[in-house]
Amino acid sequence: MSDFKPGLDGVIATDTNVSYLDVDNEEIVIRGYDLIELADLKTYPEVAYLVIHGQLPNSEQLNDFQKLLLDDSAFPSDTYELLKLIPKTSMVMDVIRTGISYLAGFNNESELMDTTEKNNLEKGTRLIAEVAVLTANSYRILNGQKIIKPDSGKSFSENFLGMILGKNVSSKETEIFDKILTCYIEHEMPNSTFAARVIGSTLSDMYGAFVGGISSLKGPLHGGANEAAIHMILDIKSKGGADIAEQYILKKLENKERIMGFGHRVYMKKYDPRALFLRDYISDLESNIDGGEELHRIYKIVEEVMAREKGLYPNTDYPIALLFYLLGIPIPLYTPIFFASRTAGLVAHVIEQHNNNRLFRPRVLYTGPRGLKI
Amino acid sequence: MSDFKPGLDGVIATDTNVSYLDVDNEEIVIRGYDLIELADLKTYPEVAYLVIHGQLPNSEQLNDFQKLLLDDSAFPSDTYELLKLIPKTSMVMDVIRTGISYLAGFNNESELMDTTEKNNLEKGTRLIAEVAVLTANSYRILNGQKIIKPDSGKSFSENFLGMILGKNVSSKETEIFDKILTCYIEHEMPNSTFAARVIGSTLSDMYGAFVGGISSLKGPLHGGANEAAIHMILDIKSKGGADIAEQYILKKLENKERIMGFGHRVYMKKYDPRALFLRDYISDLESNIDGGEELHRIYKIVEEVMAREKGLYPNTDYPIALLFYLLGIPIPLYTPIFFASRTAGLVAHVIEQHNNNRLFRPRVLYTGPRGLKI
Repeated sequence: MSDFKPGLDGVIATDTNVSYLDVDNEEIVIRGYDLIELADLKTYPEVAYLVIHGQLPNSEQLNDFQKLLLDDSAFPSDTYELLKLIPKTSMVMDVIRTGISYLAGFNNESELMDTTEKNNLEKGTRLIAEVAVLTANSYRILNGQKIIKPDSGKSFSENFLGMILGKNVSSKETEIFDKILTCYIEHEMPNSTFAARVIGSTLSDMYGAFVGGISSLKGPLHGGANEAAIHMILDIKSKGGADIAEQYILKKLENKERIMGFGHRVYMKKYDPRALFLRDYISDLESNIDGGEELHRIYKIVEEVMAREKGLYPNTDYPIALLFYLLGIPIPLYTPIFFASRTAGLVAHVIEQHNNNRLFRPRVLYTGPRGLKI
Repeated sequence: MSDFKPGLDGVIATDTNVSYLDVDNEEIVIRGYDLIELADLKTYPEVAYLVIHGQLPNSEQLNDFQKLLLDDSAFPSDTYELLKLIPKTSMVMDVIRTGISYLAGFNNESELMDTTEKNNLEKGTRLIAEVAVLTANSYRILNGQKIIKPDSGKSFSENFLGMILGKNVSSKETEIFDKILTCYIEHEMPNSTFAARVIGSTLSDMYGAFVGGISSLKGPLHGGANEAAIHMILDIKSKGGADIAEQYILKKLENKERIMGFGHRVYMKKYDPRALFLRDYISDLESNIDGGEELHRIYKIVEEVMAREKGLYPNTDYPIALLFYLLGIPIPLYTPIFFASRTAGLVAHVIEQHNNNRLFRPRVLYTGPRGLKI
């Protein structure tokens, strides 16, 4: 059965202009640019503009775009009422998802189902803004904290991190948070992007593609890795710290347990360039919290042991997990923030899918019984 | 680029025991049985049990299962409060989706993320019940009608149709509605089922897979065909009825417009067995509404012209569109009812995906620029 492709491994499911993982050259190509250069030299809004529009903005375009990203006038205040009805047992990702699904209804049917590029760009830009507000406030509402509305006097990342933490943040914290958002912004065809394109291929709308994308990204085999990685680092700390880190990992490997934050279906045994770029920022933040240096030591030991024992290198979730922790971000928000950043990538992919659509409709290998009679 | 498979046409994306479209033998195989035999001889709850459990129920199993399908004790009354906050411009499918997304939160995280078969069966059975209640009441709320809670003294289909219409329904109406639900219950790997499995493959939960599935099924290239088909039949009626039906279709074909309810990516130029089975019930209902006979005449003429001119035959959406109309079901509920029926199929596929999981992660053909410098 030569066309049987479980997991679609190696199958090229679509063409795209958005991004490409050039594994041989260890480059993440975003609209022709190297993602690491972008993260180094540009801000998240600039890269988000590039991702969804296909080119970097000039200063006027950037100015207009940043205004839209901080515009909460399009954010119906009823949304906060709705979120207050959410059961407190909900996962943050599901609260954001309910919010996105609900916000779809503020577009009338013909606007919502309009899949032209112009309309998709409008809806998509609004969604980037909306998801940031939903992300910060979903967690706040679940935890009985007061709602914080966006402050249009701040930059996107300063405002977003400020809404999350409920306080003013430093320019260093903002800078690092912004670079993390940029590193998460787009990454070819992970499951969540694929799910969004599969849904979009029925000519379903941008919001529909988004709820599919967030549902996928929530899965433990996808976006959940950053949360799992920090839990492991904290577990090592609680059980003896850097001194026991090596034996902790060796034991896990002996038990054939998976170490989250290492390896990647596409990169296989290479270093994720984002992880290499971001790990340099850990030192800048390690004194941000008590015990931060110890966590950094554990981080480095686990990295060394994994490379030596398994030939596996960190993916981007590994340094980000520690950076988020050092920034003081609540752990249940790690995956939601990943999704909030990735919204830009999803917008670009849905636009591309709608502009040149082909319905995804694979076949199956049927292995069940035949010819049963009632 | 031999592995470039736009739309995954011809790609076998997974193995499955749930169902198979045997196009050569014109049989829709459901767990080994012929779907048409099932629709002829069994009720929707019996077939739903078969689809999700893998075998037909004995009378005790059926009894227990039917109780669960009409049990609204698991349906939090806050859900109705939430639905009342939904903007009145919302599409019914999106209201149902918001409801599903919200209901996820009533499971605590460990229950929700438990992907064992036992837990998935419990959540899945509850979802079949919940989606029926959401479907009927989403429309009612959007249209300012009173909420109707399920009546456990009725059969599943009698209750579901009764909640939709807001009145008691006849046994003939119940029987035909039940057969339609059975015909929609499961159909191998359409886009919505694929979307649900793609999402499930990150080990995301049943609810997450469902919101992806409903977002897909809403798309005009997928579940929307039944609504488009009745709009066409009504358009023909308003422009002159059966007398102009032939020229109406010929003109559309001349303009290369698509005729909804005909043809199918998989069946191609064969008759969908469900359409063949269900068209016989149209006569039973044609006197249910004024002008029903005229609609039936139009129906038959369009069918003849399409076969003669294009060699295309009705898919299941074509007779179902007319049957729903004759039953008095509001048109915006046609696609939602399709989804409500298909929940059983989605449950089965998510269980199967979780039981033997492989993450879906295809690659892309990058056609954008390279080597750009900032």
